[in-house]
Amino acid sequence: ELVLTADMLVEGVHVPRHVAPADFAYKALAVNVSDLVAKGADPTLYLLTLCLPKHPEPGWLEAFTSGLSNAQADFGCSLAGGDTVSAEGPVCLSITAAGTLPAGKMIHRFSANPDDKVFVTGTIGDAAAGLALIRKEVSAHPLSGEGAMREFLLSRYFRPHPPVAAIELLRQYASAAMDISDGLVLDFTRLCAASGCGGIIEADRVPLSPAVSALLEGDAFSLEAALTGGDDYEVLFTAAPGVADAIRSAAESRGLSLHCIGSIVREPGITVVGRDGAPMQISRPGYDHF
Amino acid sequence: ELVLTADMLVEGVHVPRHVAPADFAYKALAVNVSDLVAKGADPTLYLLTLCLPKHPEPGWLEAFTSGLSNAQADFGCSLAGGDTVSAEGPVCLSITAAGTLPAGKMIHRFSANPDDKVFVTGTIGDAAAGLALIRKEVSAHPLSGEGAMREFLLSRYFRPHPPVAAIELLRQYASAAMDISDGLVLDFTRLCAASGCGGIIEADRVPLSPAVSALLEGDAFSLEAALTGGDDYEVLFTAAPGVADAIRSAAESRGLSLHCIGSIVREPGITVVGRDGAPMQISRPGYDHF
Repeated sequence: ELVLTADMLVEGVHVPRHVAPADFAYKALAVNVSDLVAKGADPTLYLLTLCLPKHPEPGWLEAFTSGLSNAQADFGCSLAGGDTVSAEGPVCLSITAAGTLPAGKMIHRFSANPDDKVFVTGTIGDAAAGLALIRKEVSAHPLSGEGAMREFLLSRYFRPHPPVAAIELLRQYASAAMDISDGLVLDFTRLCAASGCGGIIEADRVPLSPAVSALLEGDAFSLEAALTGGDDYEVLFTAAPGVADAIRSAAESRGLSLHCIGSIVREPGITVVGRDGAPMQISRPGYDHF
Repeated sequence: ELVLTADMLVEGVHVPRHVAPADFAYKALAVNVSDLVAKGADPTLYLLTLCLPKHPEPGWLEAFTSGLSNAQADFGCSLAGGDTVSAEGPVCLSITAAGTLPAGKMIHRFSANPDDKVFVTGTIGDAAAGLALIRKEVSAHPLSGEGAMREFLLSRYFRPHPPVAAIELLRQYASAAMDISDGLVLDFTRLCAASGCGGIIEADRVPLSPAVSALLEGDAFSLEAALTGGDDYEVLFTAAPGVADAIRSAAESRGLSLHCIGSIVREPGITVVGRDGAPMQISRPGYDHF
C-alpha cells in the first residue's frame, strides 16, 4: 500500500527569512517524512517543487541540495522528480512524499479508543524553544553549557528528526497516531476530536530535554509554551492499555525514546493536568494557519 | 505501475495576476494531467498544496474549488490530500498527480528513433495567442466572429485540455512522447536531444485552429509565435513510420485530433522548415524559467 503526503513551506512563515538553504531543505523533507512515519509508512521517494527568485544568491541552490541529500540519507528516501519555477517573493517549496506499508496497516488519527494510553516519541518543546531563541524572545543565559544547548535547540527547530525507527512499533501497536507539528496540545485535541473521544495529558509526564528543562527552571520559557509550541515532528499515538508494557520493551530494545503521557477518555474535550494536579489553562493550544 | 508528476504554478508567472480562481485551479490540474497523459498514464489522484494570503478575497476559495471540481470531472481524477498555508505574496500552488499504467508501458522522451514520424495532438499556438490577447500584444479585430474566437483562445490558455483520449493510442504506438508546455519548438528540441538524435518539423503541417489562422492572416500574430509559445498542453510524440497509418485510423475512430508534422533524423539539432521551404530562423524557441 502506498501513502502520499504533501506539505508546503514558505520562507518567513515556516522557517525564518534568510534561513540557511541547507536547513530549509532538510526541514522540508523532514516535515513530510514525519507525516509518513505517523501513518506507519516507510518513506521511499519524494517530489519537490521549488519557487525561487530569478537570481538566487550565489551558492543558494548548492547549499539547498546538500541539505536535501543529508535529509535523504537520514530518512532513506530519494528524489523522484519535481519542478522549479521562478517568481519574486519568498522562497516557497512543496514536497510530496510517498511511503509504503503492508496493505491495511495504515494508522489513522481517528481510531483512538477510550482507555487507550497516549504516547509521544522524543522530547517536546525543543523546536519551540529553538524558535524563541531565534526570535530573541528568550535569552539562552539560564542554560549551563549555553552554546551546546543553544545549538541543540536550534537544530531541533531546523533539522527535526521524525522517528523512522518507530515505524514498525507503530504498525504493530498504535490504535491511532499523528505527527506533532502544530503543538502537542492542539494536535492531541485534533486526534481526540477525530476519534470522537476526549483525553487527558499529565504535563509532568511529558518528556522534556535537559535544555528545555533548564530554560523552564530559569523561568526563561514556560511549560505551556513547550506543550503548545509547533515543529516537534515527533509522533503522538495511542494504544490499548494491555500493550503498554510490550511497547515499552520494544522501544527500549530499539533505543527509541518513548513516554506515556496520558490516556483517552469517553467524554469529548481534553484536559492537561498541570504539575500542581489542577487542569492547566491553555490560552492558545497551538499553531493554526487560518 | 504508478507515475507521479509535480508542477508548481505562481500567480503572475504561470497565470496572470488576478486570474479567475476557477481558471487557476483548472489549469493547475490540467498541467499535471498533461504530463501523465504524455507518459501514457491514466490520471487517478492528486495532492494539492496551496499558499494563500491570510485574508483571500471573499469567494476566492469557493471559486477555486469549483474550478478544481470541473477539472477533476474532465480528467477523471480526485483530490487525495494536501496542505494549505498562508503567506503574503502571490498565490502559489503545487500539484502532485498520480497516474497508473500497465507495468513497463511508461513512455519516455528519450526513446525516439531516426526515421520515426513526429505527431502532435490538437492545435498549436492557441494558448500563446490567448495570452497575447490578455497582454494586449495583439488585438482581436482580424478575427471574424471576434467574440467567439477570443473566447476560444482565452479558454485554450486558461483551461487546457490534455488529450486523455489519446492515452491508449500513445501506449500502443508511441516510441517517445512529452507534453508541449514550453513551446513546440523548444519541447521538440528537448525530445530530440534526450533521444540523441535530431528532427525536422514542417511548419506547414503544424495544425492551427481557425482562430490562430485568422490572426496569422491578419498579420496580428506570427507563425513563429505559435510554434514557440507555451501552454499548449498537447502531446508531442514519435512513432515508427510503419505504424503511421494505424495511428491515423485509431485517432479517427476515437475522434482524436492528431497530425504528423515531421520526422526524426540521425543528426542532432532540429530544423523547422517554413512555408517557403527554407529553414525558419527561430530567435527564441520557447519559454524557459531560468
